[in-house]
Order: sequence, then C-alpha cells, then structure tokens
Amino acid sequence: MVSWKNLDTLSSYEALKAVAPVNVAEAMSGASGEKRAKQYSVPMAEGMAFNYAAKAVDDDVLAALAELAKEAELTEKFAELYNGAVINTGEKRLVLHHLVRGQLGDAVVADGVDKRAFYTEQQAKIAEFANKVHAGEITNAAGEKFTTVVQIGIGGSDLGPRAIYLALENWAKNNNAFKMEAKFISNVDPDDAAAVLASVDVAHTIFVLVSKSGTTLETLTNESFVKDALKNAGLDASKHMIAVTSETSPLAKSSDYLAAFFMDDYIGGRFSSTSSVGGAILSLAFGPEVFAAFLDGAAAADKTATNADILKNPALLDALIGVYERNVLGYDCTAVLPYSQALSRFPAHLQQADMESNGKSVNRFGEPVDYKTGPVIFGEPGTNGQHSFYQLLHQGKDIIPLQFIGFKNSQIGSDVVIQDSTSQQKLCANVAAQIVAFACGKDDENLNKKFDGGRPSSIIIGDKLTPAAMGALLSHFENKIMFQGFVWNVNSFDQEGVQLGKVLAKKVLAHDTDGALKVYSDLLNI
Amino acid sequence: MVSWKNLDTLSSYEALKAVAPVNVAEAMSGASGEKRAKQYSVPMAEGMAFNYAAKAVDDDVLAALAELAKEAELTEKFAELYNGAVINTGEKRLVLHHLVRGQLGDAVVADGVDKRAFYTEQQAKIAEFANKVHAGEITNAAGEKFTTVVQIGIGGSDLGPRAIYLALENWAKNNNAFKMEAKFISNVDPDDAAAVLASVDVAHTIFVLVSKSGTTLETLTNESFVKDALKNAGLDASKHMIAVTSETSPLAKSSDYLAAFFMDDYIGGRFSSTSSVGGAILSLAFGPEVFAAFLDGAAAADKTATNADILKNPALLDALIGVYERNVLGYDCTAVLPYSQALSRFPAHLQQADMESNGKSVNRFGEPVDYKTGPVIFGEPGTNGQHSFYQLLHQGKDIIPLQFIGFKNSQIGSDVVIQDSTSQQKLCANVAAQIVAFACGKDDENLNKKFDGGRPSSIIIGDKLTPAAMGALLSHFENKIMFQGFVWNVNSFDQEGVQLGKVLAKKVLAHDTDGALKVYSDLLNI
Repeated sequence: MVSWKNLDTLSSYEALKAVAPVNVAEAMSGASGEKRAKQYSVPMAEGMAFNYAAKAVDDDVLAALAELAKEAELTEKFAELYNGAVINTGEKRLVLHHLVRGQLGDAVVADGVDKRAFYTEQQAKIAEFANKVHAGEITNAAGEKFTTVVQIGIGGSDLGPRAIYLALENWAKNNNAFKMEAKFISNVDPDDAAAVLASVDVAHTIFVLVSKSGTTLETLTNESFVKDALKNAGLDASKHMIAVTSETSPLAKSSDYLAAFFMDDYIGGRFSSTSSVGGAILSLAFGPEVFAAFLDGAAAADKTATNADILKNPALLDALIGVYERNVLGYDCTAVLPYSQALSRFPAHLQQADMESNGKSVNRFGEPVDYKTGPVIFGEPGTNGQHSFYQLLHQGKDIIPLQFIGFKNSQIGSDVVIQDSTSQQKLCANVAAQIVAFACGKDDENLNKKFDGGRPSSIIIGDKLTPAAMGALLSHFENKIMFQGFVWNVNSFDQEGVQLGKVLAKKVLAHDTDGALKVYSDLLNI
Repeated sequence: MVSWKNLDTLSSYEALKAVAPVNVAEAMSGASGEKRAKQYSVPMAEGMAFNYAAKAVDDDVLAALAELAKEAELTEKFAELYNGAVINTGEKRLVLHHLVRGQLGDAVVADGVDKRAFYTEQQAKIAEFANKVHAGEITNAAGEKFTTVVQIGIGGSDLGPRAIYLALENWAKNNNAFKMEAKFISNVDPDDAAAVLASVDVAHTIFVLVSKSGTTLETLTNESFVKDALKNAGLDASKHMIAVTSETSPLAKSSDYLAAFFMDDYIGGRFSSTSSVGGAILSLAFGPEVFAAFLDGAAAADKTATNADILKNPALLDALIGVYERNVLGYDCTAVLPYSQALSRFPAHLQQADMESNGKSVNRFGEPVDYKTGPVIFGEPGTNGQHSFYQLLHQGKDIIPLQFIGFKNSQIGSDVVIQDSTSQQKLCANVAAQIVAFACGKDDENLNKKFDGGRPSSIIIGDKLTPAAMGALLSHFENKIMFQGFVWNVNSFDQEGVQLGKVLAKKVLAHDTDGALKVYSDLLNI
C-alpha cells in the first residue's frame, strides 16, 4: 500500500528546497547550452521527445526530484490507479480513463463488470455505428447520407473532443480520412446553439448529446433547442440524435435516440476524450480507424508513464519540474504554446484538465494544505502569441514557465518558399529562437531593449501531428496533471468548486434570492 | 505639463497601502451586499454599467484611489495623449487611436497633416470601396460579386478585428447587415493559410493584406501563399487583394493591390481595430454603417474616460481597482469572463492588448521599476468556463480577480423555455450567481465543499451586444490599459520584448547559429 502524505511532510521536499538554484541564462549559453540541449531530452511515445534543457534544473535538482518521486511513491500511486483503487476519494470512485485505451495492469472488475471489456465493447459499438453511417446504411428519413455531426456537451464533453477534432481535421482531409464535418454546441447562451444550427443543414446532421449524468442543465437545454429546430424542419428528432451517457442515466434507454453509447462514473469529464465522449464524434468525423490510432498513441504514452525512472518518464519529469517551479521557485502560471495552428484549442482543453483537477486547497482527506497547488494555465499557438502576449513573457515583472510544442512537418504539406525558407521552417525557427531568447536574454545599454533571460521553457518535439501523436500528447498532459496531483496530495478527480455556482443559479431562476443576488438578478432582467 | 513619476514615489500610493483591506465576503453579504450592488455602479457609454460592488473596495479605498488618480494626473495625461503629445517615448510617436473615432481635444497636426482629417478620409475611402463591392460595382474578373473577405495579418492586425467580427457576426445576420463572410489567416504555420484557402471560394474572395510596415514576415509569407493559390486558380492576384498599410510602406503604392488604405505610426497594432486595420474587413463584412456605429460607441466611451471624477469614469476606476489588486493585494492574474458566446475571442484580444502594453519592467524613461506591472490576462466565455477552470478560481490557492461581462438580451433572439426559464435567463442567472458565489463563498463542515469566498469580481452589464456596445466595450478596456500604464509609469505603446525572438529566428533561418540554438535548429529539422 502506498501512503498519501502532504508535500510539506516529505524530507525529499525539504532537500529539494535546499538545492542551489540553476542560473538558466548561464546554463543555456555556449558549450553548456549545447550539451544540455542535446542531453536533457527524454524520448516519448510516437517518436516524440520532451526536451527540458531550458528548464531551471541541473543534475542536482534532477536527483532531488527523483528522490521526491520515490518518497511520494508517484509511479506506485499510478499503478494503484490503473489497477483499480478508489483514487477519487471524495466521490468514492475508481479512475479508469487509462483503461479505455489499454490494459496497463490487472484486470479491473467493478460493479461486477470487467471494465476493459465494457469500454472496448462501447468502442466496437461506436465503430459499427460510424461505419454504417459512412456507408449510408444509417441515413436520414429520406434515405440520404448524414454529412455533419454536432456534439452537444459542455466542459469535458466539449473542450477535449473539440480540440482534438481541430487538431486532426486537416490531417484527415489530407489523408483520405475525413468523413463528416463536426461542430459543437456548448454554451447555454442561446446564440451559441442558434448560430451553429444556422450554419448546418439539419436534415443531414447527426447530433451527439453528451452528458454522463443526463442532467447537465446546459446540455439538456441545448438538446431542446436542437429538437425544436429539427421539428421546425419537419424532421423526427429521434432519427437525428444519439446519446453518450452512463448506463444509469435517464438518457440511456430513451427512445429519443437513434443509439446510445456509454461511459461510466470512473471516467472524469475532463479525462473523457478517449472514452465514448470523444469516441462517437471523432469516429463519425474521421472513421473508427483514426480514433483507434489516437487511442494507441495515448496507450503508448501511458506505458511510458509507468517507468519509475524520472529520466525515462516524460510525464513524470514534466510534472516534477512543474512542482519545482510552483513550490520552490514560486512561479504562479504556466503558458502552453503549441507551434501548430491545429492545436489552437489544445491550451483551452489543458486549461480545464489542469485547473479543474489541481486547483484545490484541501488534500485528498479534506484537510487544508499550506503550499501552492495547481497553477493558472493559458496559451495560444505560436507564432500568433509572439505578436500578442509574449512581450510580458519576455520583459514582464513575473516569470512564467513555458511549455512549447513543435513539429518538424506540417499536416497538409502545402508550403511556399520566401526568402529561402518554407513557412514550416520559419515556424520551427521561431520556436527554436524563442527557447534561447527566453533562456539567455540579451544585454543592452538601453534597458528597454534588454532581456534578462532566465525564463524557463521545455519543448515537446514531434515529427508530425498525426492521430497517434495527438493521443500521446493528450496522455502526456493527463499524466502530468495526475502526477502533480499525487505530489500535492490533492484529489485531482473531483470538482466540488463548481457546485456553489450551480446552486445559486437555480435560486436565481426560482426567484428565491435576496441581498446582492437579488440586485444582480434585477440588473440582468432575470 | 504633467509629471511622470514612478508609482512608488507617490504619497497617495503609500496612503493607499495603509487603508484597511475590505473583507469582500462580509461586505457582499446581507444588507451591505444589497446596498453595494445597487450603489457601486458607474454608468458607461451605450447604456452599459460598470458594477464593482464585489471588488475589494469601500469608500476609504475609493477615496485613496481618487487621490492616486489625482496625484498621478491620470486624466491630465490622457488629455496630453489625445491632444497629440509624444506619449510613446521609446519610439518617439504620438498615440492617436482615439482620434480615429472622434475629436476629443485639440486638432492634432503631425507631419504637416491634420490627423483627424486623414483618418476620416481613409474611412470614407473604405466606405466607398465597400459599398462598391456590395453593389457589384467592384467585382472579380468575371464580373461576379465578391462573397468573402479574408484578412491576412498577425497580432494587432488579427486578434482585434477577428474578435470584433465574431462578436458582431450573428448580430449582423439578424439585422440585415451581413454582407460578406470574413476569415483570417495569421500564423506562419503553413497549415493555417492552406486550411483557410481550402475553405473559401478564391474566385469570389477579396484578401486584405494588413501590415503597417509592409515587412511583417508572417504576413508577407502568407501573402505569397495566397498569391500562389490565386495564380493556381488562374486568377489575377492584383484584382483580389487590397492593402492596409502606412503611406510610407512598400505596399502603399504597389500595383499588386486593387486599393490601399492607410493607417500611420501613431496607431499601435493592438489599438488598431478602430483604424483602417479593422475598418476594411469590418466594413466589407457588415457595411460601413455598422463600422461607423462601432466607432461611435468607442468615441462615446472615450468621452466618458476624460472625466476626472473616478466615480464617473468607468475605465479609470476599473484601472485603479486593478492596480490596487496587483500592487497592494498582490494578485498576479486577471480573468476576463464574458457571458456571451459572441465574445469568444475577446479575451484573447484583451490578452494581447493588456499584456503587450503593460508587461514591462522599465519605466517610460528606461529605468527599472521595483513594483509589479501588467498582470497575466486570460479568459473564456461563460457558462463554458464554469465547466472548465472555475474550479481553481473558486477553490485554488491563489486569488484571481475576475472581470465579468453580461448582456440582458441575446443577439439572435431565438430561445427555448426549459424548466420555466429561457436560455438567456439561465445565462444571466449563472453570471449573477457566480458573482455572489465568488464573493461570499459558503461554509461547510466538509472542507472540500467549503468556499472561502473573498474572490473579487466586477461586471459590465449591457442591454445587448450591438456594434455601438462593442465599440464602447473595446474602448473601455483600451482606456483601462492606458490608465494602468500611466499609473505604472511605463510606456504602454511600444513592444521591445518581441524583438529578440525575431532576430534569433532570422539567424536560425540563415543557419548562423551555434550552441543550444544550433541543437534546437537541428532537432527541428530546419
């Protein structure tokens, strides 16, 4: 059995704080920088690599982080998780999102069911359904093929699948794997659903209603919105909608849906992209083979994350460096900066996955912790960000750790040579330049043009953003978040912090308010 | 003449630090909360209001902030700016983005030109051009109407116009003002241009090339990409492209463009949405009347920002509260949370506008400052964010000040009643609930379900997101950023922090590298 202890009770944490800090600007200059850039790199799944040369670590810091990983039993805790322990203590649930994409350890039987078999059965059902839709065996009432799929979901049922769809859309179009256009309705703002509905041909659209509980207010409201639209178009809504939900939800056996596919309580919303939540829409959009390749990439990265050696476990190392930055160096935010337009919404997904998991102030036993936990996560793709918020990253008063992602090749392959280089080369040249600029800075007599440097970054380098690479990338960050939750001794798998707002919103809608809440209700004409 | 002094030399700043802090949870509870929610509100242009009741201020803090505004001569500095002083000291430039939308003070003559006349002349030229395109007087070579407009630009030439286009797209469609679909190419990632080009009918598309200097690498590269596509389609590129640039740029008099519209060096990129940079694409997309209404809204808000009374100047008050949060209360980030899907990219625009302007460590004289300057800005629309990162906002270890935006009415007006309320009411109920939840929190024996409260927020409440309201909103934040820059004594109008990356990227592309930079160049296959 592992023991769950607060970070500040670990002797390895005290030892880590005592290690001399690294001067990033010095370390990354000259021969030292060359050596680090070559050596401080860990292979990842799918031929990618996690290069951490420009982070504020050296062999002494790494040794201390390895001790921390050992004392906190991080990979042992991961093993408990994938072998089916009740890791989500608050909600008394197993945490099985790794199991949807592979069998890492023991068979997990819960509620009398072999869960791996359950998840693969759902994948098979989805694959069969998607293939029939693509083959024209499942059609609209007029016998015409469906051309578009619209996901109705919010939070974990929206951000991850949307980010992954956008990440693979152009790859699929360029690899004969593009089957159906996908769109997303999430916000309870009626303009969201109205605008999406106006942009699609509802007669040829399948809607995927995603709600684990079957009770998410936004999602049920948007379902009604869509049903009204289908009805107004003279269509039978039940022939245009499928549900992704838990077997126990009111949606599971309803005749309102063409089909229902299941996840369960052991798949947290923000970790559900590799479950049926991502599976239905991605299989419909790109075909089941693409979704399977995406899962394979995630499974391969999960396997790498089981390695107890932090120098062979990129997710674990990334997590530990993040803890060092947050708790020892005192940096409060992390920017995720993919040099890939396809990853335009991946930072928003990671913002949810990370901040909802580790933005906690109590440990897994409900006791307050006296150290910082999850940081603020934000980001936009490069090179766009360079012309936006990078000014503050380079010369602002706070140091923001950076997490770059880059690929050697573009997805579409269409390119243009200007000033002797392709756009792809320019893109890659920019991210290489930024790492060194942030690390080393530049002196100048005019202090306005001086760069202090010492601003740490890592980069994940891949060959091309394929479905498998996307799966590995997603798994890397999911596991990084998990390991950090273990270090901070928080429950990364509940989200009690979202409840109070829901309760008060219901009161407002029931006109059961007083004080400031009543005033705001009046001001907003509710 | 005003005097430019560092914040920490002002006696009013010392006095502000000495004021007793406000307990937000107490202040916002019961009768006190009701009173504050009613009284702590400042009217804004276009019928909007800035409500700051849930901020950590009381009459004592406000009095101290008023003293700070007075001692720092904030509205006097604004007057110097709009009357044509060289406020951008680093680049020795005037700062005239207010002048593109109205005449706030004296006539500004620079380089022998009445600048207001110059800007309005450009607007008139754009309006004439757009009207001719809409009327079918300017067409493609086949005499067919243009249906789509694609902006090629990055940073300030992308984020602002894109955010405003998205903000008004549905309004326009619902008000017979939608003329042409707009798309945007920004990233040097070749997949960005390739994907946008694949999604439009180039034969019926006008491209707007936006670069003040005419030398932005990303933009010129993407221009070539587009020209190749036009050529491959058998089209004459010069009949499909217009330029927005400065009169002195290489693009200004080129025969490569159907027309050229001008801005000048006195319009910073991130403040250029109300200049020709936003004017060309927004006038083509929605018609010149809509763009004019947008400018009128901005001009009205600018006028409000001239008021020396902080309780009658919402941008100034918002700025001062932000300084108090950053420099006295020690909060490092600010989240912008619009409860409007139409404002989905407005936080990304503000992230640029704010972080690029005030993410500085030296004052306007190039001397280091010893206090915090611009914060990290991030955000996503509600209610989406509630199901994402709000967990950390409610229960994380750091307090993040919040800036809500809400509208009583939706843009499209299509809605559905579920559980006795419309979607719009649910949307508004949620933002009202969040303000109180963040401020007051909730006690619970289970600390995992406890909310400490004390998390400050403000809200801008409007009737509907119209073009004029959008203009007023944009101006509010531009002026907030400007006032904060005055308080911090930084030059908010240059961006030297983006230069080093550009220089190093050029070295990489020229293979003029050694050390770590050479290693990264090799790893990325450049």
